[in-house]
Amino acid sequence: MAIDLYWGSGSPYSWRVLLALEYKKLPYTSHLLQFGKQEHKSAQMLKMNPRGRVPVLKDGEYVCFESLAILTYLDRKYPEPPLFGRSAEEAGTVLRVICEYQVYVEEHITKIIAAIFFQGLEGKQDEIAKAMQVVAGEARTIEARLSQSKWLVGESLSAADLVVFPGIQLLLRALERREAQELKARFLPLETHYPALAAWLRRVEALPGYERTFPPHWRESLAPE
Amino acid sequence: MAIDLYWGSGSPYSWRVLLALEYKKLPYTSHLLQFGKQEHKSAQMLKMNPRGRVPVLKDGEYVCFESLAILTYLDRKYPEPPLFGRSAEEAGTVLRVICEYQVYVEEHITKIIAAIFFQGLEGKQDEIAKAMQVVAGEARTIEARLSQSKWLVGESLSAADLVVFPGIQLLLRALERREAQELKARFLPLETHYPALAAWLRRVEALPGYERTFPPHWRESLAPE
Repeated sequence: MAIDLYWGSGSPYSWRVLLALEYKKLPYTSHLLQFGKQEHKSAQMLKMNPRGRVPVLKDGEYVCFESLAILTYLDRKYPEPPLFGRSAEEAGTVLRVICEYQVYVEEHITKIIAAIFFQGLEGKQDEIAKAMQVVAGEARTIEARLSQSKWLVGESLSAADLVVFPGIQLLLRALERREAQELKARFLPLETHYPALAAWLRRVEALPGYERTFPPHWRESLAPE
Repeated sequence: MAIDLYWGSGSPYSWRVLLALEYKKLPYTSHLLQFGKQEHKSAQMLKMNPRGRVPVLKDGEYVCFESLAILTYLDRKYPEPPLFGRSAEEAGTVLRVICEYQVYVEEHITKIIAAIFFQGLEGKQDEIAKAMQVVAGEARTIEARLSQSKWLVGESLSAADLVVFPGIQLLLRALERREAQELKARFLPLETHYPALAAWLRRVEALPGYERTFPPHWRESLAPE
């Protein structure tokens, strides 16, 4: 079957799926959509996902969206190497770490990123500082996990790593912006505050094919300003 | 192995797991915790889940929390009858419907319920009316699915049904309150506005063991006021 992936540069949800495809060494046709041109809301895209969101994966005639659903599909269809562990217990823990990230971390990261990149920090310093405090606390939990194991769940990469990684990268990129200098001090340099987390980021970046998953528009502006 | 389930009455997340255990006909020891007495935050519970949330499932020595993670674990450990389909495609679609519910519906239902049960509607009529509008729109999507198939994904019950069902039940219970009369008109009677959804609710309620999953404190006050 032929896999088509429709995605957008800088979408953390898209990034998860790209990482999964590379990790499983699955051949795929990459369709990079331009958010600026609203290509993710085209008639063709809305036919596949009426919500007009990416990523969307098409494998032969089967269409799937929502990143966690795509990871689940890919893992059932192409089981090696596994993304959800080799036992029921590992699968449960992988999902647990993913759910914890989604329930307790993700919205705060999204809020911080949106404020820095799009809305401006003015007038919401308190709110964003609070979000940063939550993220910093959760990062300590992740740091503790990674101090004891190579990957977020045990000694093999799993879907948990792929779900969390793009969010952290997005946050780090946002914190590099000049207007985020004050927030930054709480988190960076990562090597000092969260050494195990920093080493884990490097480990993901060293995966074969990683370069193909890197948001293309980040490359064009490596020093975001 | 012996399964222990720690849960709270009226917690939709707990209800999902109870339904799964009954559906798979797994014997389990039920530990109903009293939220009012903060039993979910006891030392014993925090040792299993540092976040002090329920449900928590213990199977032998293995501990799992976050309802979707528990459903995943149970399905891998005790595969029959399956909760995530019999093919990769079915698994992907089950997860897709679950993710859509979590991303686009759940927070609005939670907001409505919290306003009706705990915070009062005063001063936030607009906000709650908007949330209700979103929920009504998503209910139409679910209605469309259920007009074409017996369960949310295809002709067998799946984790998607177990994830969505308790949220809808909670919403319906909230809408029965006197202060929710205005909101109610948009949604009820369910049999008129969403006949397929109403029939699906009855189908879940007819599952063997359903009575054991029903929130005990709802029974004590069947006419909530």
